[in-house]
Amino acid sequence: MALINENYLKLKAGYLFPEIARRVKAFTEANPDAAKRLIRCGIGDVTEALPEAVRYAMHEAVDEMGKRESFHGYGPEQGYDFLRQAIAKNDFQARGLNIEADEIFVSDGSKCDTGNILDIFGSGNKIAITDPVYPVYVDTNVMNGNTGDADENGAYGGLVYLKCTPENNFVADIPKEKVDLVYLCYPNNPTGAVATRAQLEAWVKYCLANDTTLLYDAAYEAFIRDPELPRSIYEIEGARECAIEFRSFSKNGGFTGVRCAFVVIPKTLMGRKKDGSKHPLHPLWSRRHSTKFNGASYIVQRGAEALYTDEGKAQVKELIEHYMGNAALLVEACKKAGLPVYGGVNAPYVWVGCPSGLSSWQMFDKMLNEANVVITPGSGFGSAGEGWFRISAFNSRANVEEVCRRIAALK
Amino acid sequence: MALINENYLKLKAGYLFPEIARRVKAFTEANPDAAKRLIRCGIGDVTEALPEAVRYAMHEAVDEMGKRESFHGYGPEQGYDFLRQAIAKNDFQARGLNIEADEIFVSDGSKCDTGNILDIFGSGNKIAITDPVYPVYVDTNVMNGNTGDADENGAYGGLVYLKCTPENNFVADIPKEKVDLVYLCYPNNPTGAVATRAQLEAWVKYCLANDTTLLYDAAYEAFIRDPELPRSIYEIEGARECAIEFRSFSKNGGFTGVRCAFVVIPKTLMGRKKDGSKHPLHPLWSRRHSTKFNGASYIVQRGAEALYTDEGKAQVKELIEHYMGNAALLVEACKKAGLPVYGGVNAPYVWVGCPSGLSSWQMFDKMLNEANVVITPGSGFGSAGEGWFRISAFNSRANVEEVCRRIAALK
Repeated sequence: MALINENYLKLKAGYLFPEIARRVKAFTEANPDAAKRLIRCGIGDVTEALPEAVRYAMHEAVDEMGKRESFHGYGPEQGYDFLRQAIAKNDFQARGLNIEADEIFVSDGSKCDTGNILDIFGSGNKIAITDPVYPVYVDTNVMNGNTGDADENGAYGGLVYLKCTPENNFVADIPKEKVDLVYLCYPNNPTGAVATRAQLEAWVKYCLANDTTLLYDAAYEAFIRDPELPRSIYEIEGARECAIEFRSFSKNGGFTGVRCAFVVIPKTLMGRKKDGSKHPLHPLWSRRHSTKFNGASYIVQRGAEALYTDEGKAQVKELIEHYMGNAALLVEACKKAGLPVYGGVNAPYVWVGCPSGLSSWQMFDKMLNEANVVITPGSGFGSAGEGWFRISAFNSRANVEEVCRRIAALK
Repeated sequence: MALINENYLKLKAGYLFPEIARRVKAFTEANPDAAKRLIRCGIGDVTEALPEAVRYAMHEAVDEMGKRESFHGYGPEQGYDFLRQAIAKNDFQARGLNIEADEIFVSDGSKCDTGNILDIFGSGNKIAITDPVYPVYVDTNVMNGNTGDADENGAYGGLVYLKCTPENNFVADIPKEKVDLVYLCYPNNPTGAVATRAQLEAWVKYCLANDTTLLYDAAYEAFIRDPELPRSIYEIEGARECAIEFRSFSKNGGFTGVRCAFVVIPKTLMGRKKDGSKHPLHPLWSRRHSTKFNGASYIVQRGAEALYTDEGKAQVKELIEHYMGNAALLVEACKKAGLPVYGGVNAPYVWVGCPSGLSSWQMFDKMLNEANVVITPGSGFGSAGEGWFRISAFNSRANVEEVCRRIAALK
């Protein structure tokens, strides 16, 4: 029988969210009555209706598929031009950023993209991630053989962990050593931290000076309300020479169940071969996309395009305001409860210190059992998350108000 | 800058279909009038309307997304239970096959699945593919570093090529040597060949005797009309212990632009570690799916489910009959033109020998220039495909009748 990829066996028991699901299921089965009042603020999943403009466009696209004259079979693997153009124009060019439509690769989701991007990189790269961090960055590096085993804290050998703490406002400090690849995510999942222009300038400067490729996850850019904060890494001069950006329609358009995202790979972005010569990354990703992917659904891409119409934009704005209103209430409630609170201002996640003496999973269990609220334990995002927990603002207003009351009532 | 995956640089210029697209584009620009009568029988892409049952279900699903009470965000990465149950029941259990819903992994396409499956296998496996073959199997092995460089015929070092020729009716002979992984696809793309029960029994016997993992691509099973021919590898005793099966809704349901497929990994299927111990493949793929994929679109999965209703089944049957009627006409036309013809009986592809002296690409150019018909050159599928070409039966009846007339008129 075929040899398996033994790197998978290094992975720690269960990806974070399946473990949460397991505990919630056990609680629900043991406490059927309390389970009825359960409110889920764990996984960062949107809850409100898909924008009307999107639904309208998808209905139209489904109808188009019903006539052979307007039927769409295989589309371009990199995405339909109508969507790539809409993205380039609205998300970049309208903001003065020099990104062309053919530098945009449409996909079925950012989890896929941030995981699959490693396919085009070789082995032997020194890789830095923040701690706490979105687990997918770490786990996909483990799967690809880029790490050693995990230690007792769950930290994998070979990775450079950049600690994010209250001392640096949860924005990673520039490392002293040289790394080849670094993952940054702002607005941050899980901490809700945002990087300032000066901080991102320092990062780009570091990347250019050290030949570091920056994997910049901007999945939450729509939640930035402060106009001074960069929404794209390409707002920073030099980023076209060092950065790949990941974007998603999951959180702005409510597409977590619809599935659409994109990656930006500037044609000016280079990698290197072992002999030291340079090679552009754009054709490598294009080849991967053509060979291991067959394009996002036509119907879904028409839905995503509708987010860029006037109606679509207005409906997205309403969704963002709704969720950010929730975030403000949660921040306030946690502060009133005397807990340290970060995030929730330009991000849909509120990052909260556990009451003294409680670990993240203890706080998870306390919230589940006493408040019947599902949160996400900070330690699930890395050892520096221990003692913290994440509350997601993705919920109805009524649920969030109830969560606030239950936080106030915690013993 | 980060080291790139240099295995990508071993890939030969362009995946087959982009090269076809390039030549067609050049022809179209040079011959705008002739281009107007162009008929595409190249890429195996469906052309007829999406079944009404599917559209109805997708409309309903879009409407569900418009109300927060019935909104669907992130779904289970492995697929919604409603679809996994429908697949297990209709495609397997109703045919007496012992496949459970939780052995089915729903995805956004078979190209992704057949490419990504290599993630769970280690390096050092001896891998066999047929020649000619669907290029994705080869290219993804090249990308993953499982091959050496290509020789002058485009054959990659390290792969075991199983020649398929008229002598073996284009069904691969059992190899003399032991291999760890083998890819088989029946009904075959590109040759339209189908494996008999006895042939598949011999393959499963070989796999069990040699500890070989069989990657069985059954994307075209819906086109099998002969009731004696197996539609699933699991019709063969022992296959649960050696085979993964890939299935797709692309060709039966016309989902090439909608995107939905699935993989079957029996829980009894094992791989091995370097120390010789066994490890089940099911949890590895489940972990990959959870970490690098976020589930197929809810709306799309509801569409796929509708293919299993009575209306859906009747509409699929109609589509299959339409395409197979086309195939019969194409087979007849090529025979009348005095060309050797295979396939087209239990498969939507007709595999035709080039007129004497012509290479596959010469025949491609001749068909493009003289008949204004796009076919697929056999050599694009491997060196054993040289001297052959593939005609796809995916088209309207009127177009196929016109293609038949143009074949008759060829000089």
